[in-house]
Amino acid sequence: MTNEKIPYKIYLSENELPKQWYNVRADMKNKPAPLISPATGEPLKQEELEPVFCRELVKQELNDTDAYIDIPEDILNFYKMYRPSPLVRAYCLEEKLGTPAKIYYKFEGNNTSGSHKLNSAIAQAYYAKQQGLKGVTTETGAGQWGTALSMACSYFDLDLRVYMVKVSYEQKPFRREVMRTYGAQVTPSPSETTEIGKKILAEHPGTTGSLGCAISEAVEDAVSHDGYKYVLGSVLSQVLLHQTVIGLETKAALDKYDIHPDMIIGCAGGGSNLGGLVSPFVGEKLRGENDYQIIAVEPASCPSFTRGKFAYDFCDTGHVCPLAKMYTLGSEFIPSANHAGGLRYHGMSSILSQLYHDGLIEARAVEQTSVFQAAQDFARVEGILPAPESSHAIKVAIDEAMKCKETGEEKTIVFGLTGTGYFDMVAYQKFNDGEMDDYIPTDEELEASFAKLPEVGNK
Amino acid sequence: MTNEKIPYKIYLSENELPKQWYNVRADMKNKPAPLISPATGEPLKQEELEPVFCRELVKQELNDTDAYIDIPEDILNFYKMYRPSPLVRAYCLEEKLGTPAKIYYKFEGNNTSGSHKLNSAIAQAYYAKQQGLKGVTTETGAGQWGTALSMACSYFDLDLRVYMVKVSYEQKPFRREVMRTYGAQVTPSPSETTEIGKKILAEHPGTTGSLGCAISEAVEDAVSHDGYKYVLGSVLSQVLLHQTVIGLETKAALDKYDIHPDMIIGCAGGGSNLGGLVSPFVGEKLRGENDYQIIAVEPASCPSFTRGKFAYDFCDTGHVCPLAKMYTLGSEFIPSANHAGGLRYHGMSSILSQLYHDGLIEARAVEQTSVFQAAQDFARVEGILPAPESSHAIKVAIDEAMKCKETGEEKTIVFGLTGTGYFDMVAYQKFNDGEMDDYIPTDEELEASFAKLPEVGNK
Repeated sequence: MTNEKIPYKIYLSENELPKQWYNVRADMKNKPAPLISPATGEPLKQEELEPVFCRELVKQELNDTDAYIDIPEDILNFYKMYRPSPLVRAYCLEEKLGTPAKIYYKFEGNNTSGSHKLNSAIAQAYYAKQQGLKGVTTETGAGQWGTALSMACSYFDLDLRVYMVKVSYEQKPFRREVMRTYGAQVTPSPSETTEIGKKILAEHPGTTGSLGCAISEAVEDAVSHDGYKYVLGSVLSQVLLHQTVIGLETKAALDKYDIHPDMIIGCAGGGSNLGGLVSPFVGEKLRGENDYQIIAVEPASCPSFTRGKFAYDFCDTGHVCPLAKMYTLGSEFIPSANHAGGLRYHGMSSILSQLYHDGLIEARAVEQTSVFQAAQDFARVEGILPAPESSHAIKVAIDEAMKCKETGEEKTIVFGLTGTGYFDMVAYQKFNDGEMDDYIPTDEELEASFAKLPEVGNK
Repeated sequence: MTNEKIPYKIYLSENELPKQWYNVRADMKNKPAPLISPATGEPLKQEELEPVFCRELVKQELNDTDAYIDIPEDILNFYKMYRPSPLVRAYCLEEKLGTPAKIYYKFEGNNTSGSHKLNSAIAQAYYAKQQGLKGVTTETGAGQWGTALSMACSYFDLDLRVYMVKVSYEQKPFRREVMRTYGAQVTPSPSETTEIGKKILAEHPGTTGSLGCAISEAVEDAVSHDGYKYVLGSVLSQVLLHQTVIGLETKAALDKYDIHPDMIIGCAGGGSNLGGLVSPFVGEKLRGENDYQIIAVEPASCPSFTRGKFAYDFCDTGHVCPLAKMYTLGSEFIPSANHAGGLRYHGMSSILSQLYHDGLIEARAVEQTSVFQAAQDFARVEGILPAPESSHAIKVAIDEAMKCKETGEEKTIVFGLTGTGYFDMVAYQKFNDGEMDDYIPTDEELEASFAKLPEVGNK
C-alpha cells in the first residue's frame, strides 16, 4: 500500500487489533531489578504480594520471561468499544510548521476517561472479577485514573472505593461526579474511615491530603475487608504491560502503510503510557532488528530521568508499598505546583529506568510554559485540545520537526497523545491569562531529597 | 458483506466520506415557508439578508431546489481531521436490556467541541473567509456552539467575537477558556461594548443575560463593523444542510453492511442535528423509495413539537432576526431551568416543522429525570458519558428496545448521539444527589405565550 496517500487517520479494523500484550522484559538482557521488601530487602514473592494485589496481576508483575500474554476475550470486547485509537497524520501541524518532517500521533483521548488509563483499568477490573472479588480500592489525584477505573468496574459490576486527594475532591468536582455517575464511592482523603486517615487528621488537622496518604488509605481499606484488593494505575510493570496495546496498534498501523519511524516520543510520569507506546519498538532494538530514537519527555519541575538517582526507593510517599529500583527524586520529593498532575510522580517505572540506564531510551526535561504554548499551537491546527501531560510530548515533537526544517531532513516522528485537557481548563486559564510560571528544583533541594533514600537495597 | 459480523464500530474510509451535502428541501413537495420580514411580512431576499449574513450562506439558506451541494475541498480536509464519526453497534446496551432489537448510534462527540456543532461551524467559517471577511460574531449559551466556532475560526485564521450569556460566562468558565485557547474574544453579555447591551444594562442593572440579548449584541457588533458578519449555530436551514454529513455517513455505513433501520431517533432543540441525521432517510420517504419511522425527542419542559403552534414567530427573544414559520412555544417562552441547555429553544427548524406538519416525522416529549437515568444506564455499559441533550434520544431508543423485548420484534433502531457530557457535570451531580426535578409548563403558561405571537405572517 506504499503508493497510496496516507489518510489523516489510520484505523485498524477489528480483526487487526492486538490479541496479546507484549512483555518487553522477556527481551531485556538486563532485567529490571525486582520489587523488594522494605523490611528484609529480599525480592517479594507471589504469596507476599497477594494480600494486597489480585492474584493474576501479581503473576504479571513478576513475569519477566513470557514475551506475549493473551488478552482475555472479555477485555478484547471492551477494547472494541473504544479501540483501536487512531494513528493520526498531523498534516495540518506539518503545514503550519513548514517542516519536511512527517508527524504522526497515536491519540488515546477518545473515551470518557479521556486518556490511556482505561487500557489498564479494564484489565485490572477483569482479573479482580475473575478472582471472585466483590470490589477494589484505589487512590486518585486529579481523577483520571479513578474515572477510568470507575468505568471498568461498572462494566464488570464490581464495587469501587476511590480515595481522592481532598483538595481535588473539593476543587475539581467534575471528575468526582463522573466517577459517581459510574457508581463509584468517592471519599475525600484523608478520611475518618481508615486508621491511617484518622491518624493523619489528628496530626495535621485541616490537611488537604496527598497522593501518598490516599494510597495508604486505599491499601488499608483493601487489606481490612474480605473480597477487596488494591489496584494502581501506573508505575507497576503490569500496568506497562497492559498499555502495550498502544504500541502494538501503533506498530500495526505503521506497518500497514510501510512507514518506518525515525523517532518515537512520549511523556513520562510513572512511565506506563510511554512504556506501552515504545515497548514493541524497544523490543526490535533489543533483538537487533531495527533502530529507533526513543525520547521520554518529563517536566523540568519533576525531572526523575534527567536529574534523578537510579536507586531503590519507595513507590509511595506513605511508604506502605514495596521498594522498586528506579530513577527517583526521592519519595518525599514534593514537586512544585505543576499542572501536569499526571507527571508529578517522584519515580519512574523500573522497566523504563533499566532501559534508560542501558541507553536504549533518552530523556528530555521541558518547562511548563513552553509546553502550554505547544499545546495551544497544536490545538489550533489539529483541533484536539490536549492534556497538559500529553503536551510535553507535543513540545518535543515540534522541536524535532523544527530541527528538520533547519536541516531539511524528512524524518518520521511518532508521538503519543495520551489524552484530552477538558478537565484541565483551570491550568489553561492560567496560561491564557499569562499567569503561569516555570519552576525548576535547585540542586540543593534534590540533594536533600536524595539524602532520605532508604538504605535497604542501596548498600 | 452481509454474512460478516457487524463490528462494534463502523468507520467509513476517507474515500467513502460524503463529498456533497444533501438538501432535503429539493425533494419536499410542501416547501418550508420562507423567512419573512417582521416589518413587511414579505419573504426576505438575498440582498436583504446579506448585511447580516455571509453571502454564500444566504444562498444556501434560500436554496430549496438543488438536492446536492458540493462540500468545498478545504472543508472536506477539515472534516477528515475528526470525521468520519463512528456508527456504533450498541452490543453491550442490547445485552444489558436483553432486547432482540439491534441498536446503533451515530456518535458525534469525538472532537474537542464535544458535539456535532463543528460540522456547521467549519462550513460557516470557510464561507466567511472565502468572502474576504476579517471575522465573525456569534452568541453562545453554555458554550458548545462558541467552542466549535472558535476551533473553526482558528483553523481559517478568522477573528471571532463571542457574546456569552453572562451567567454561563461566570459559572461555566471551562468552555470559555477553551474558546480563549482557540483565540476567540469572549465577552459576557449584556456588555458595555454595544448600544443594545448598554440599554439592557441601564434597564436591568445586574441582569445575568439571556440568549436573546446575546444574539442582539452579536448582530449589532457584526453590522456595525466592516468585514464582520454574524453566524448562527442552529435552527437555520443552512445549518441543517451542513449537518446532513451526519445522516449521509450514517446511511453509507448502514448500506455497507446491508442494514435497513426500522426507526431513526434524534433529540430536537433547534433541530439542526436531527434534521442532519434524518434528511437522507426522509428523502427516501419523500421519493417513495423506502419507509422509516422517524422520531424527534424533545424535553417535556420545552415541548415545541408536541405542544407548540405551527406559526410564524421570531427566531430570537430579542426580535432582531427574521420571522420563520415553525412549531413554536412563542419567542418569549422561558423554559424552566432544564439542564439540556441545547434543547431549551422555543422554536424548531422550519424544515423539520413542515415535515412534522406533513406527518413524515413524529415527536415525543420526555422528562428530565428519566433522561438522566437513561444517560447513566447508557454510560455504564457503553462507556461514553453522554450530553444531556443527546440523552433524550437514548431514553426513547431504550424505550423502543424494551417494547421489542415485550413483543419479540427484532427491530433495528438507529439514534443520534450528538455529544459528550464532560462540561455538564453540574447537572449530573444534581442527578447523582437526587436533587433533580421535572417541570412541565401548564396549558395556561403556553396559552399566555401563544397570545404574544406576532400578527405578521399569521393572519
